[in-house]
Amino acid sequence: MAALLYIKVNEKDNVAIAVNDIKAGTVLMQGIVAGQDIPQAHKVALNDIPAGKEIIRYGVIIGYAINDIKIGDWINETMLDLPVPPPVDEMSYATNLVKDLPEPPVRTWEGYANPNGGYAGTRNILGINTTVQCATSVVNVAVERMKRELLPKYPNVDDIVPINHAYGCGVAINAPESKIPIRTLRNVAKHPNFGGELMVVGLGCEKFTVEMLLDEADRTSDNVVILQDLKGFAAMIDELMKMADKKLAKLNERRRVNLSLSDLMIGMQCGGSDAFSGITANPAAGYASDMLVHGGATVLFSEVTEVRDSVHLIGERCIDEVVCKKLADEMKWYDRYLENGEVDRSANPTPGNKKGGLSNIVEKAMGSIAKSGTSPIVEVLSPAEQPSKKGLIFAATPASDIVCGPCQLASGIGLQVFMTGRGTPYGLALAPVIKVCSRNDMKDMWSDLIDVNAGLIASGDATIPEVGTELFNRIIDVASGRMKSQAEKYRLHNDFCLFNPALIT
Amino acid sequence: MAALLYIKVNEKDNVAIAVNDIKAGTVLMQGIVAGQDIPQAHKVALNDIPAGKEIIRYGVIIGYAINDIKIGDWINETMLDLPVPPPVDEMSYATNLVKDLPEPPVRTWEGYANPNGGYAGTRNILGINTTVQCATSVVNVAVERMKRELLPKYPNVDDIVPINHAYGCGVAINAPESKIPIRTLRNVAKHPNFGGELMVVGLGCEKFTVEMLLDEADRTSDNVVILQDLKGFAAMIDELMKMADKKLAKLNERRRVNLSLSDLMIGMQCGGSDAFSGITANPAAGYASDMLVHGGATVLFSEVTEVRDSVHLIGERCIDEVVCKKLADEMKWYDRYLENGEVDRSANPTPGNKKGGLSNIVEKAMGSIAKSGTSPIVEVLSPAEQPSKKGLIFAATPASDIVCGPCQLASGIGLQVFMTGRGTPYGLALAPVIKVCSRNDMKDMWSDLIDVNAGLIASGDATIPEVGTELFNRIIDVASGRMKSQAEKYRLHNDFCLFNPALIT
Repeated sequence: MAALLYIKVNEKDNVAIAVNDIKAGTVLMQGIVAGQDIPQAHKVALNDIPAGKEIIRYGVIIGYAINDIKIGDWINETMLDLPVPPPVDEMSYATNLVKDLPEPPVRTWEGYANPNGGYAGTRNILGINTTVQCATSVVNVAVERMKRELLPKYPNVDDIVPINHAYGCGVAINAPESKIPIRTLRNVAKHPNFGGELMVVGLGCEKFTVEMLLDEADRTSDNVVILQDLKGFAAMIDELMKMADKKLAKLNERRRVNLSLSDLMIGMQCGGSDAFSGITANPAAGYASDMLVHGGATVLFSEVTEVRDSVHLIGERCIDEVVCKKLADEMKWYDRYLENGEVDRSANPTPGNKKGGLSNIVEKAMGSIAKSGTSPIVEVLSPAEQPSKKGLIFAATPASDIVCGPCQLASGIGLQVFMTGRGTPYGLALAPVIKVCSRNDMKDMWSDLIDVNAGLIASGDATIPEVGTELFNRIIDVASGRMKSQAEKYRLHNDFCLFNPALIT
Repeated sequence: MAALLYIKVNEKDNVAIAVNDIKAGTVLMQGIVAGQDIPQAHKVALNDIPAGKEIIRYGVIIGYAINDIKIGDWINETMLDLPVPPPVDEMSYATNLVKDLPEPPVRTWEGYANPNGGYAGTRNILGINTTVQCATSVVNVAVERMKRELLPKYPNVDDIVPINHAYGCGVAINAPESKIPIRTLRNVAKHPNFGGELMVVGLGCEKFTVEMLLDEADRTSDNVVILQDLKGFAAMIDELMKMADKKLAKLNERRRVNLSLSDLMIGMQCGGSDAFSGITANPAAGYASDMLVHGGATVLFSEVTEVRDSVHLIGERCIDEVVCKKLADEMKWYDRYLENGEVDRSANPTPGNKKGGLSNIVEKAMGSIAKSGTSPIVEVLSPAEQPSKKGLIFAATPASDIVCGPCQLASGIGLQVFMTGRGTPYGLALAPVIKVCSRNDMKDMWSDLIDVNAGLIASGDATIPEVGTELFNRIIDVASGRMKSQAEKYRLHNDFCLFNPALIT
């Protein structure tokens, strides 16, 4: 079979994507000759497109031609005007509820049952929560010592992770939007990977108090250390070591058990996307998502600014008016947030996205939502909220990778699948991250960092269901602890970057 | 000498501060009996104060009595209304330019001369700058290995510090206020402790590019690693190790030399303050500051919301109209910032401040500015700007400790003096932090974390000039590398929490 030159996604499209770099003069198909050198992943015009006319990809208008574009021309981000975003107040809902989902190869996995009754754990971790950044310095020194002196005694415990963050003091704790960072920290303290063990370090004079972090029943001397109550640094380290030793002994008793998929919650995210993301990595992730949902699992997808321009397609998949209304509310919240900061949605995409052929946020959004597959959407969450339903859920978060991760962790995900086109060494300390790349070149380049290569779809060497099934199986293997993801193997993880739309004082 | 019961700061004051807990019924002075138990550091009324009348401390109105207050009564934060903040548009300037400053005991110190011609270094550090949080995971793994395998080969190098931060992508890079995080990262890359060596790690697709971080002359392959250009994780670590090895070899040649005080820049900050801070630790710091300034050094003080209510007193000390005008502009910027976030200056103080007797932001501000001493103010900086003058400078930053530190580091401080009443284990990775406590109890409690005890001033066991001189000498010893500060000894430091008033996308 001759190598594919270009990919056209939808019948209606008047552009296609170059599978590899295309030289000027190359005959693409009958009557279409590349007018210029066209970089890999970039768009080529399949018709003449006069100034002001629609440029169509994924069957939707991604923009309007600024000047006349000739058949065979390279179309880049400087050549199209942004359409107005779809309105959110009158969205249709429940008009596209797909029931015909792919069958998952297995319906069970091996996880740590949650003593609090929620989703199960995928790893066994001592999490050390802090109320405030001021505790970070002491906690880090203590954790280094715990890992050296305590962790080797408890072979069933995977790791000790401090939740260091920039919140807690010097913030407007009563600002309307402070509820987001507060909810994030409250919810992440109960992460399923912590096995119900709570260890909290506070300073004693901070604005975000232990009372705000923990429910009353949890505020015991077994769970909480206040640094200002202790006689100096040596006493602090001593107290933290003692508490960690007790918690580790309990965690060491945890064992994996056979569980149904309904005990598993994972998150989907993409970062460093390119024009292949929407036709390879994200659809494969969507296929795996559909299998998971069909099997009873819960899957979160996120990134408000990368959903905004395709929100009408998400609305149609919401199971009822309540879900669709909350979807609209989250979009409106973000529209206002951007407006207050004197920017608009064109702040996304990034230079790397553009280099990767993504001309604007509409094109990026159409590719981004492919990771949600086709399942009905049963719930919409505000940032860092925990779900009350099982199935496919839109969990509103910023599109920023580094902020989306902590939000989804607070929602309780046990694993994240991360699709990338340009490549990022992204990882989370609290849950394994499986990386899926959109191009074969990316897999060649970062063979030791990419877990699953969806680029085979673009080169015609695999189908979306094939890569989707491979990814499903990888999710089950990694969640069950039978495999480590590459990021996990090298201990790669980002900082816990909280989403705080409120103020610093 | 009988132990002091209370401290009255100014002749005009109608309140005093309890030096220790005072039992109800204790005779404070002729005609004044404690009406209730009064906690240490809290205020006691020296006169009857009818509802609506002024409560005066530091000779200024810190609030108005909500209800009638009787002589001898405990006055806490629930009992006074906030006055309106002083207007900033018509401030007097240059009306209080003190020339009679205390003589410094020495006028030289031992520092690392700055190859770029700016302020000298106090430590010898390989700083690893990153353009984006996405690089953090790889950089942290590399730094761990560098510390193990490379640092021992270079005994003249103190440390290897990655500048990990939450900025760089998923942000509105063109938002008006993005100039603050961008300036912070650009300036901190040139920190005097890095000895002119630049090492920068970028991802390759981020919004905050290497081009935005570095001047053109600095963007060489000797200084910059782009992760997406390298063939996988192993190659990344290899490349980072090689670059670090070269940089460390150069840094290892640095030697301290005898320098004038005009080559030294330090920062002042307070955190976890109490009602003693303004009469012990901060005035002692102010005295040391006056000595430094008299000797030709540069001293920054900061924290806009803790200056706002005493800004007229700062305005009078500005050397000219230009400086005073910029002071006013920085106050107005913050007024607007708080208003946009739907909060006001009452968001500060913290619960710990209140427990420590600070009733509101006016009382806190009057204590806070004491750390600036009495010297004339020669310049005002926006957050993270670098100074163009020598002497006492107001460097506008949030009052948040964790954000003020990185801003002052970006301005180029080689050392920070940190005053505390309640106690915090605060530290910076890039420069030593000397901690000064406001109370003897704090020194007893955290003897291994506090460097200088200013509580002796409240107990009558030392004078402000005595503790100020001790602090001056400590600053010189620590800056010269003859001593380590306590935070440095235990390797305590906060994360590099950037001030980003712009948006997440």
